[in-house]
Amino acid sequence: MPRYRLTIEYDGTPFVGWQMQENGASVQGRLAEAIKAFSGEDAIPRGAGRTDAGVHALGQVAHFDLGKEWSNDTVRDALNSQLRPDPISVLACETVSADFDARFSAVARHYLYRIVDRRSPLALERSRAWGVFRPLDAKAMDEAAQVLVGHHDFTTFRSSECQAESPEKTLDSLAASRHGEIIRVEASARSFLHNQVRSMVGSLKLVGEGKWTVNDLKAALDAKNRAHCGPVAPAHGLYLVKVEY
Amino acid sequence: MPRYRLTIEYDGTPFVGWQMQENGASVQGRLAEAIKAFSGEDAIPRGAGRTDAGVHALGQVAHFDLGKEWSNDTVRDALNSQLRPDPISVLACETVSADFDARFSAVARHYLYRIVDRRSPLALERSRAWGVFRPLDAKAMDEAAQVLVGHHDFTTFRSSECQAESPEKTLDSLAASRHGEIIRVEASARSFLHNQVRSMVGSLKLVGEGKWTVNDLKAALDAKNRAHCGPVAPAHGLYLVKVEY
Repeated sequence: MPRYRLTIEYDGTPFVGWQMQENGASVQGRLAEAIKAFSGEDAIPRGAGRTDAGVHALGQVAHFDLGKEWSNDTVRDALNSQLRPDPISVLACETVSADFDARFSAVARHYLYRIVDRRSPLALERSRAWGVFRPLDAKAMDEAAQVLVGHHDFTTFRSSECQAESPEKTLDSLAASRHGEIIRVEASARSFLHNQVRSMVGSLKLVGEGKWTVNDLKAALDAKNRAHCGPVAPAHGLYLVKVEY
Repeated sequence: MPRYRLTIEYDGTPFVGWQMQENGASVQGRLAEAIKAFSGEDAIPRGAGRTDAGVHALGQVAHFDLGKEWSNDTVRDALNSQLRPDPISVLACETVSADFDARFSAVARHYLYRIVDRRSPLALERSRAWGVFRPLDAKAMDEAAQVLVGHHDFTTFRSSECQAESPEKTLDSLAASRHGEIIRVEASARSFLHNQVRSMVGSLKLVGEGKWTVNDLKAALDAKNRAHCGPVAPAHGLYLVKVEY
């Protein structure tokens, strides 16, 4: 029974998120429909990251099994054909061994959060970035971010709906950098808690505005209390960039 | 009577184009409505470039006159407030002298055309770039593009609906460059004919695919015949980047 691994790009705007839900179209659900339509088989792809509604992916990874063997190019092209006109694109398909699991085999996940920092509202970037209308100090954000790097109890930066058993995670890197009016916040870890990146970015924005010092961010982390988190950054600025195995 | 100059960004996707038309919402029409709503005055902004339906702008320029004097920041913020939720953003407002004309005072217009060159369909870039599914030789495109630079009769690369009196224009620069899977084609001139950039990009794509040689492109230009143009590139890859005065 061959196992297929997909690398997937999507615009999260029209979806309820990665995961199948009863209240609307999901990326996972649309992929399952496309798999069924081309192969006749029922298979639910399992993703590396359960992105929320509005969150985008440049390189989500998912796996699924089929009874029949197909060439990788056939699977990719057939899925893309079936996925039209939804903004989901299968970038690559590979055949992998039966012990590969998109979620549990991952050794690193890389997220990008994009802020457009300018006075005027966003037009072209409206559903692609967070428009912040006050000047942010990206250097201060980057310095403060280093407080969060390492092994910590991230309860403060975790959604109350997070289902992970432990709030402890190791954040490998967190960096903020300015590129003209765009601020990129890049986060890497083996795995993240639910809403962790958006929670961290929301708090870093307070640092960028000068409302929080580095010490305030440290105190929020040390509080291990969700109530100490800054307002969570909106979904549409977040991208799952890459998953490593 | 003060004259105001706006710098405007927009996502061209939902509009019939810059110019007011009877068949749908235009950027110019939405701006006129926003001007009326905040100032009570009737004023039709005149734009530097009449972008077609689906064409985007990072820096369109337009001017209009009002009886009343307002601060530049007030005009910018009031227009942005009235323009919601349309994807049009006034980046800047300046008060200019009465002899400034967004269209006729322009000395250079800069356009960008974005191609995403890859096998898989576009998801995040769907209405932001032209997806070309065969490998293109960007270097060959750039070399061929130099044939078009300079003063020429551009009849071949001009829409049959173009209203310009003369088909002769001076193309200051035309360059194609690859950045990963993205090919950027940048074009600069004092002014362009209708559909000129998209017509040139459509023909350069044939060069990139190896279907046309540099000599084929030269022969198309020399033919001064619209029938010799390659298929016109789609609107949604084109951006009016900047207008100089």
